[in-house]
Amino acid sequence: MLIVMRRDAGQQQIDEVIRAVESKGCKARSIPGGDRVSIAVLFNKGALEEAWFQDLPGVKQTIAVTRPYKLVSRETRPESTMIDVGGVRIGGGRMVIIAGPCAVESEIQAMTIAEHVKKAGGDLFRGGAFKPRTSPYAFQGLGEEGLKILAKVRETFAMPVVTEVMDLEHADMVEAYADVIQIGTRNMQNFSLLRRAGKAKKPVMLKRGMSATVDEWLMAAEYIMAEGNPDVILCERGVRTFVRHSRNTLDLSAIPVVQRESHLPIIVDPSHAAGFRDQVMPLARAAAAVGAHGMMIEVHHEPEKASSDGAQSLYPKQFEILCRQIRAIEGILGENQA
Amino acid sequence: MLIVMRRDAGQQQIDEVIRAVESKGCKARSIPGGDRVSIAVLFNKGALEEAWFQDLPGVKQTIAVTRPYKLVSRETRPESTMIDVGGVRIGGGRMVIIAGPCAVESEIQAMTIAEHVKKAGGDLFRGGAFKPRTSPYAFQGLGEEGLKILAKVRETFAMPVVTEVMDLEHADMVEAYADVIQIGTRNMQNFSLLRRAGKAKKPVMLKRGMSATVDEWLMAAEYIMAEGNPDVILCERGVRTFVRHSRNTLDLSAIPVVQRESHLPIIVDPSHAAGFRDQVMPLARAAAAVGAHGMMIEVHHEPEKASSDGAQSLYPKQFEILCRQIRAIEGILGENQA
Amino acid sequence: MLIVMRRDAGQQQIDEVIRAVESKGCKARSIPGGDRVSIAVLFNKGALEEAWFQDLPGVKQTIAVTRPYKLVSRETRPESTMIDVGGVRIGGGRMVIIAGPCAVESEIQAMTIAEHVKKAGGDLFRGGAFKPRTSPYAFQGLGEEGLKILAKVRETFAMPVVTEVMDLEHADMVEAYADVIQIGTRNMQNFSLLRRAGKAKKPVMLKRGMSATVDEWLMAAEYIMAEGNPDVILCERGVRTFVRHSRNTLDLSAIPVVQRESHLPIIVDPSHAAGFRDQVMPLARAAAAVGAHGMMIEVHHEPEKASSDGAQSLYPKQFEILCRQIRAIEGILGENQA
Amino acid sequence: MLIVMRRDAGQQQIDEVIRAVESKGCKARSIPGGDRVSIAVLFNKGALEEAWFQDLPGVKQTIAVTRPYKLVSRETRPESTMIDVGGVRIGGGRMVIIAGPCAVESEIQAMTIAEHVKKAGGDLFRGGAFKPRTSPYAFQGLGEEGLKILAKVRETFAMPVVTEVMDLEHADMVEAYADVIQIGTRNMQNFSLLRRAGKAKKPVMLKRGMSATVDEWLMAAEYIMAEGNPDVILCERGVRTFVRHSRNTLDLSAIPVVQRESHLPIIVDPSHAAGFRDQVMPLARAAAAVGAHGMMIEVHHEPEKASSDGAQSLYPKQFEILCRQIRAIEGILGENQA
Repeated sequence: MLIVMRRDAGQQQIDEVIRAVESKGCKARSIPGGDRVSIAVLFNKGALEEAWFQDLPGVKQTIAVTRPYKLVSRETRPESTMIDVGGVRIGGGRMVIIAGPCAVESEIQAMTIAEHVKKAGGDLFRGGAFKPRTSPYAFQGLGEEGLKILAKVRETFAMPVVTEVMDLEHADMVEAYADVIQIGTRNMQNFSLLRRAGKAKKPVMLKRGMSATVDEWLMAAEYIMAEGNPDVILCERGVRTFVRHSRNTLDLSAIPVVQRESHLPIIVDPSHAAGFRDQVMPLARAAAAVGAHGMMIEVHHEPEKASSDGAQSLYPKQFEILCRQIRAIEGILGENQA
Repeated sequence: MLIVMRRDAGQQQIDEVIRAVESKGCKARSIPGGDRVSIAVLFNKGALEEAWFQDLPGVKQTIAVTRPYKLVSRETRPESTMIDVGGVRIGGGRMVIIAGPCAVESEIQAMTIAEHVKKAGGDLFRGGAFKPRTSPYAFQGLGEEGLKILAKVRETFAMPVVTEVMDLEHADMVEAYADVIQIGTRNMQNFSLLRRAGKAKKPVMLKRGMSATVDEWLMAAEYIMAEGNPDVILCERGVRTFVRHSRNTLDLSAIPVVQRESHLPIIVDPSHAAGFRDQVMPLARAAAAVGAHGMMIEVHHEPEKASSDGAQSLYPKQFEILCRQIRAIEGILGENQA
Repeated sequence: MLIVMRRDAGQQQIDEVIRAVESKGCKARSIPGGDRVSIAVLFNKGALEEAWFQDLPGVKQTIAVTRPYKLVSRETRPESTMIDVGGVRIGGGRMVIIAGPCAVESEIQAMTIAEHVKKAGGDLFRGGAFKPRTSPYAFQGLGEEGLKILAKVRETFAMPVVTEVMDLEHADMVEAYADVIQIGTRNMQNFSLLRRAGKAKKPVMLKRGMSATVDEWLMAAEYIMAEGNPDVILCERGVRTFVRHSRNTLDLSAIPVVQRESHLPIIVDPSHAAGFRDQVMPLARAAAAVGAHGMMIEVHHEPEKASSDGAQSLYPKQFEILCRQIRAIEGILGENQA
Repeated sequence: MLIVMRRDAGQQQIDEVIRAVESKGCKARSIPGGDRVSIAVLFNKGALEEAWFQDLPGVKQTIAVTRPYKLVSRETRPESTMIDVGGVRIGGGRMVIIAGPCAVESEIQAMTIAEHVKKAGGDLFRGGAFKPRTSPYAFQGLGEEGLKILAKVRETFAMPVVTEVMDLEHADMVEAYADVIQIGTRNMQNFSLLRRAGKAKKPVMLKRGMSATVDEWLMAAEYIMAEGNPDVILCERGVRTFVRHSRNTLDLSAIPVVQRESHLPIIVDPSHAAGFRDQVMPLARAAAAVGAHGMMIEVHHEPEKASSDGAQSLYPKQFEILCRQIRAIEGILGENQA
């Protein structure tokens, strides 16, 4: 931490700040600048609260220097994490394509879509059995019945399945059926659920909160890793901004930033970012071009009948074209490394 | 819902949209405009998915007309809800002042602060026993020990207490000790927790999510009310914006908007919005001047030693002055109605 | 500036950064931390570009420490600036109330409203003669005719007038008629216009840009002051956020922040922040309670006929009540200083 | 426009709204819904002010249905606009690559970079002679000397040049030298400058404002077209959000949205969106994958010495690789149309 003093701060005030720093078990080092003094706080263990120094006389500002996360940091672990999900490797060289409907609505719906996904070259199948819905009156998912359908999809098509856990109550059940446990946007800072996910024996896909900074997101992943689960997949899905032409604003710059800061794999969900079908394909291609480790796409054979998110689901034919485009873009990245 | 057709949409496309509307059990009414046709969807029960119509040929845009919430709406219940908490009325004429430390740290800390709060004229005491923290390594609260200290505060100073519930696991315990159960910002769309709160026998204070619209916030309150709990207090605490000089941006315009849309009482938490002590008093006065039903303020007698949020806690002396200012502003509003 | 090195940075990389700093004419001082080294850059004159060091091997991050503005800073000039506008003092003890229509529409309109404003206790009159409109087809203002009407208002009611300048072309004309020259939100970083305003002999009211940080805003004021005009009044008018229930989100925390950082007076425009009449009175009272040096309110006797911004204009009767409330709140602040 | 009535609105209130609509020269049509009445406003010419109806008794909400722009709309002109700039076609099939330094710093700097740009396959050269800078003390550009250097680049390398105009004062001068006149982010709603650009005989590149909606951006383009200049190129360059890891958040979903709404070509500036070099290449590839009509990239052979924006400038070698990647992605889009 750096403590910046006011220009008019006197030596007595500087000394007082130094004493305050030392009282917290740290070393203080005074740095004279052009027109003001700053004080560096050294050798701190654990997080220092900026609050402790902010209001001392003569202090202008405190600046946190180091990032607070540890286990998720690439400084802690330089090699990229690769996660094996039923033979599919996430975070390895090949982009992973996860696809399926927003919600599992029936066995025939899931199986029909899964067949399309498999044929087009999808690697994993997604589908919600427990749905977080803004309205209590909207379709809330099939629950365990939905999970059983997912299990059938996995057996039939040899595709691992991704599905969301919404609360502690159903965590065991979801863990039993899922190959990857998804934690949704609205639960990114549901710390109790993160801790539970940290005890799971399955990989966890952690979606970015709607207004989370990358630091907060990585700290949420740190909660999971701190409980012993090393297999966390991050998923960028758009953030809330003033923009109204898409449901959220996809923050693709987060991909290279996360890849530099952390060793964890990161994928992109263009469907929830867009909210509208005709934006999904361009954004999915963009996610590939940025160099994400994969993407998750909503596909539905009858989107106009979907119980949720129909407007953003691709038709199977579109998904097929998209898969070809993604693989072709992937090829370009491999050949033309910067 | 209104479906706006493209200028070049032909009669056949218009007819197709009308058929689609009728297939959902609604009536459609075509409205010729200056240079395009719109189609009004009438008599719909439950939420219509805009997605169902958005991609039909010739459709330019769909516009949702009515708000989706019911129980929380002032159209459903024109009289303002007043909630009695151990004799303190929230939503009635008098502004309610809730104050205390961010976290309960020890009995002596809580009792010391409570004495100050009581003396200055605070109505309720606040203090966290379970703390949602961005970092897994930060102080997480005293748990049940903290709740017991809150109970002692209540007995000693005859002040009802407000404290946060973080998960289903501790919901019974928190409900047993608290007079008002707080649901925090990060849990505003933790739908399982909202449902549980809807079954509680205590009033619930629902903080606004960091990037929640008023509609989403009211829908979260609807979750609680739909389970049978009519006593919901809304709490504005700032939203995330590009602004960096305060922790969040306090959205005071939400107060008159919520008061028009809903019958539920709404209070303001200027401490978390500000993040810095010297902004708290001005924002708290502003909350009073706007006409909120109350406010919740962090107070600490030794903020530089606080285990969390020290930088935004008022000193007891400041809180005392603030209480006088709030009461004086309250008086002005009463005398000078618009 | 502080240059934070990666944990694994070697001594050679550290030395290289130090050489780079010295090559820019600054001194470098290495600060060993718990698990990484930082390098403080001392005695820099003028702005250092973070870019110069950001990509050197081993560098993790650069952090700017000091703020770039000078003339506007309270560190440069500790006493608050007070600006005299035709006998009305802005930035002195008394809150200044500026009111009038969005646009001057006719002599009779302006004179009618001015009479109401004067009677209710307004200090200055506002009205646009040149209007920045999102659409080229919307009413663009009366031009010089509007300025002449403003001059007549000033003579008749002995109220100084505030009006907007939109471009260099009309700057002389506006300066000739106005008592305070307003620079609008969309022009906050129109640097040519700022420079011209810096040469004006009249005070300048600088509205905050729709997505400007306080630093950028103060730097825009610095442009004006750097040309020799010391009389700048800042005006907070809301920033753009994801929020949709108001036109903009009024950032009241900016008031105490600016008052601490700068010696310039700061007022609030609740009308443009709100966009809706029923939010204007609460927000105006809030601006008073926060301790702004004044406020600017849109008033219209026939808002339903206004050529622009009718929905946010107060009726004269509402304005009258509001003035009383503001004066009463002002009294409270005076009596109950923190 | 649609006027939504409150549930409890009586027939008298409905009639009053209808009368108000008719008094504005429009037709009103009442639409009974499930639990409330809406009133459609038909045959309006020009923009209706929502304000006119918002506060009538019984009115809950007004909703604008049609977009306000005309000339820029694809509904007005279905065929895509293609702009010829010295033989380079923008908006035609091939993506246009514009590259060069942020600012022209010297003849040798510009010529050196131009040679790299040309060799790598750039189509146009960019470079600022007048620089909008947040600080009045930062490098403001070489002015006419810079323009002369750009002219020399054009002659030497047969590359048309793009450069920014900042004010009316220098508009003639910039128009004389430039092949494409750029209007910067901070001037997107400098309406006087837009009108002047509308009278220019050169194409105009209009960058999106930092917090502009697509509607506002297209309305700014409408200002230019309304003055007679049909050649407007839109440029997405990131918007301001709460995100801090990049300078701005690139809003790639704006590309398909603009391409659907308007016939004007749209390109992307990943350099200003990113602010950091290591994000520029991924975002530029993403812009290609999204299907933009081109992109504008900052390139500098000595970024650590650049007078502005060095941190976001690519090295010539990186730019060369990027050009190959962009062309390869372009090929994929052509082969795999959705």
